[in-house]
Amino acid sequence: MTKLLRSWVESANSAETPFPLNNLPYGVFSTGGGAPRCGTAIGDQVLDLAAMEADGKLSFDGTLQTGSWNAFMGSGKANWSKLRETLTDMLGDGGDESLATYLVPLAEAELHMPFAVSEYTDFYAGKHHAFNVGTMFRGPENALPPNWLHIPIGYNGRASSVVLSGTEVIRPNGQLKGPDDEMPRFGPSQRFDIELEMGAVVGTPSNGPISVAEAFENIFGYVLLNDWSARDIQAWEYMPLGPFQAKATATTISPWIVTAAALEPFRTSTPEREKPLLDYLTEPGPMLYDIDLSVTIRPEGGAETVLTNTNLNVMYYSAAQQLAHHTTSGCPMRVGDLLGSGTISGPTKESRGSLLELSWGGKEPITLEGGETRKFIEDGDTLTLKGAARGAGFQVGFGDCVGQIKPARPL
Amino acid sequence: MTKLLRSWVESANSAETPFPLNNLPYGVFSTGGGAPRCGTAIGDQVLDLAAMEADGKLSFDGTLQTGSWNAFMGSGKANWSKLRETLTDMLGDGGDESLATYLVPLAEAELHMPFAVSEYTDFYAGKHHAFNVGTMFRGPENALPPNWLHIPIGYNGRASSVVLSGTEVIRPNGQLKGPDDEMPRFGPSQRFDIELEMGAVVGTPSNGPISVAEAFENIFGYVLLNDWSARDIQAWEYMPLGPFQAKATATTISPWIVTAAALEPFRTSTPEREKPLLDYLTEPGPMLYDIDLSVTIRPEGGAETVLTNTNLNVMYYSAAQQLAHHTTSGCPMRVGDLLGSGTISGPTKESRGSLLELSWGGKEPITLEGGETRKFIEDGDTLTLKGAARGAGFQVGFGDCVGQIKPARPL
Repeated sequence: MTKLLRSWVESANSAETPFPLNNLPYGVFSTGGGAPRCGTAIGDQVLDLAAMEADGKLSFDGTLQTGSWNAFMGSGKANWSKLRETLTDMLGDGGDESLATYLVPLAEAELHMPFAVSEYTDFYAGKHHAFNVGTMFRGPENALPPNWLHIPIGYNGRASSVVLSGTEVIRPNGQLKGPDDEMPRFGPSQRFDIELEMGAVVGTPSNGPISVAEAFENIFGYVLLNDWSARDIQAWEYMPLGPFQAKATATTISPWIVTAAALEPFRTSTPEREKPLLDYLTEPGPMLYDIDLSVTIRPEGGAETVLTNTNLNVMYYSAAQQLAHHTTSGCPMRVGDLLGSGTISGPTKESRGSLLELSWGGKEPITLEGGETRKFIEDGDTLTLKGAARGAGFQVGFGDCVGQIKPARPL
Repeated sequence: MTKLLRSWVESANSAETPFPLNNLPYGVFSTGGGAPRCGTAIGDQVLDLAAMEADGKLSFDGTLQTGSWNAFMGSGKANWSKLRETLTDMLGDGGDESLATYLVPLAEAELHMPFAVSEYTDFYAGKHHAFNVGTMFRGPENALPPNWLHIPIGYNGRASSVVLSGTEVIRPNGQLKGPDDEMPRFGPSQRFDIELEMGAVVGTPSNGPISVAEAFENIFGYVLLNDWSARDIQAWEYMPLGPFQAKATATTISPWIVTAAALEPFRTSTPEREKPLLDYLTEPGPMLYDIDLSVTIRPEGGAETVLTNTNLNVMYYSAAQQLAHHTTSGCPMRVGDLLGSGTISGPTKESRGSLLELSWGGKEPITLEGGETRKFIEDGDTLTLKGAARGAGFQVGFGDCVGQIKPARPL
């Protein structure tokens, strides 16, 4: 296993920091109400890459001065490698300590969306999740849809509702209809939920079908992703064309794009196949990652409770397989496309990635620290996703992905 | 009914032109390989609005010189009215004939996408279509899904695959599985189809729920829309999260945005409700339009056959209702969002808006001029959508929405 790369930024050498030199995640930040700037997190600091490019310390055709990572991603993989290598040299032990003038304490930085989301697609690649949800609705014999083991099932989500970690989420109103109600009514969702997911960010565009190997190369990096879901709105609306308003309130992402390059040492294989995949979906090598994930909940003014601990390595399909499938129809993919993995639930009750599964559709309320119980999210609750790939004495961490739920708008 | 507004551009005064002064649709064109420019069609000419603004004949903060209508749409409704009034004065009888220098023959203009599609949503608001499709799959008793009369059902489509009229469409490959096949296979769609739709273009953004009345005001205009659909890919993939790759090959739109202002005289009401709508979906007035629509098919080297004649006025939900529903969850809408109406099928066999319905799932092949038959689209076929609102001695027409099907990519 890779070792910690030591940096002259001392805080980056801690086993606890999510941002050692091995990581170098890309984000967008501002200070004092100024313009958003591209930066990379290192220890408890952010290195101002926009200022460095403006001063001629870096040269990437101005892409680092655009306040977004889209232009840099679109400038090509050669630049991805070049920037990472340059920063690794500059920030490493024996690097250029004069760059300390470009460091800003993370505590003083306001974070912004790291990239403009072109389009957002959400998948359903967690077998335990699909099995749990299917069991609740159709019983364990028919839990998995017949296509599930053949297709990385996905649907198009709504890019305009993707928000940065920390953005408040207003409980949605929508059409609700209980099984015994004659007519639907319009009101606040009573079954508002999280979905613990990993988001893959497309960095290289394509215009036609691509292979799984090409898809893997086209992914720039990853963010944590919480696909907020109104289960009751979804149950009534989703037949026959899938989820729509149930998934359009918000999708929260973590603020730093952890690059595929940083996650390279943590590659792992998808599970053994129960049925052979069609050729176009076959992986030429390990394309999933070993990333520990957790979710916590904190009622307003209350204590935090860990809801789940799981790992990305349980997923049945990798982002590369999903992206390749996404292009089979000829669908063009663009820089900034975001692909949600689907809910990441492990095999045990403690590793389920949604309240729907954790409370088994609300039938088994969860007891929180302090004694409150939860079936679904209540107003004021703060949900936090965390993630880290763990090396020997270091971790490649994701910034937290946080959202607090506010009461629904008055009708 | 409104009368023809006479123009000094003589070709605009014909009963046959789709582009009389009453219309003034907005498009983007170029000549001689030059840069794309905003223009309006008048008779058989296009008026170069970008050049007019550059020369100080129009003043809209440079939005007409961006090669796209997004910036102008985003500049606000007051500008929408101002430009339309200004052009109506300039081009009307007794207007400014010196502007003839800004006219370019349409025959010499290359047309481009009139706006950048932010996101694309497709609805399912044609009751006859939903009933026909439901009857084929579930029988007439259960044809309409239980939510259909309550919700303008929609799903998110793929904006990156929206293309301009005239763009060739490559038959998609995808996962196919017959009911008796043990395993799916990967190959060209055998049931590739059209969907005759109207696309609504959002011109005013919103950030939270809006009313139907507000939604109506936020729609800038309309385009014809063909939502190419691979029925066999869809049948296998769509459970449980809806259509995905079946709808991602291409969606073709007509090149001119016909404004809501131009269609104002043709407003009509949605049909009587079989069940009362929830308050948030109730229309304060007529928000649908009386627009004649047709589809033709032409085999390569063959003659054109009219497949269908129908009218937008058969739809159960208006674009304003769909847009209002789209925002119930809090989903932000942006300038350039495109909303497909859903397939526009009338009550008769001759007014069905898809081959799936016209050939009743392939069971009743259609005989074309010249004797060939069709169940679904064959390679080389050209499909054309036409549309026009008809006044007394004039029409407000849409440019044709055309696509030819090319053979699938080799596997």
